[in-house]
Amino acid sequence: MSRFAPRPEPPYYAVIFTSQRAQGDDGYSAMAQRMAELAAQQPGYLGIESTRDADGLGITVSYWKTLADVAAWRRQGEHAAARDRGRGRWYSRYELRVAKVERAYGWDRGHDSVADPGLD
Amino acid sequence: MSRFAPRPEPPYYAVIFTSQRAQGDDGYSAMAQRMAELAAQQPGYLGIESTRDADGLGITVSYWKTLADVAAWRRQGEHAAARDRGRGRWYSRYELRVAKVERAYGWDRGHDSVADPGLD
Repeated sequence: MSRFAPRPEPPYYAVIFTSQRAQGDDGYSAMAQRMAELAAQQPGYLGIESTRDADGLGITVSYWKTLADVAAWRRQGEHAAARDRGRGRWYSRYELRVAKVERAYGWDRGHDSVADPGLD
Repeated sequence: MSRFAPRPEPPYYAVIFTSQRAQGDDGYSAMAQRMAELAAQQPGYLGIESTRDADGLGITVSYWKTLADVAAWRRQGEHAAARDRGRGRWYSRYELRVAKVERAYGWDRGHDSVADPGLD
């Protein structure tokens, strides 16, 4: 399965979650997998990209059709409960930013496409 | 040095670069370090967050004051040259998204702050 999110036409929304993991798993992996599955079932979900290095710094970006979809996912019960448990247990620090995607392009060696519209 | 970017007041811009590394270093590490140093010298630069896992999937988010600053960094000569070299040499695929940060908050165990303005 691709670890890249699809490339829908902007505008849409990105939730950028940068986090530093605390020591030990303590249920983290199971929670993270469950949250990714649960997010994918929510209205307006467009995709997710997530990675974490050996030092525990992770960046997860989830993509959503509208700001209302972002807010609904934030309020979703199981997600809110996990977030409350997670603060202090799984993370030593995190930053969350909600951003409106205005331009997007990509390149894939396997395909002959460089869609780069420029920014000028 | 913190691997988190500062938390300026929105709005500002995020450039989300998700990439899959090709095999081998081939000058990649030196280029990546140089680009991070160079970005930090550009007008409007606010910070950067970057991580990559053992499978080579990386996410780098750089933050900028304005869309004009993003465009200027994109046009910057050494950066543009590195980008042209990199496509196909260092990456097997990438996606780039330019997004306007509308809300931001964070939490740090070392500080007694949970600034979560909500989204409702």
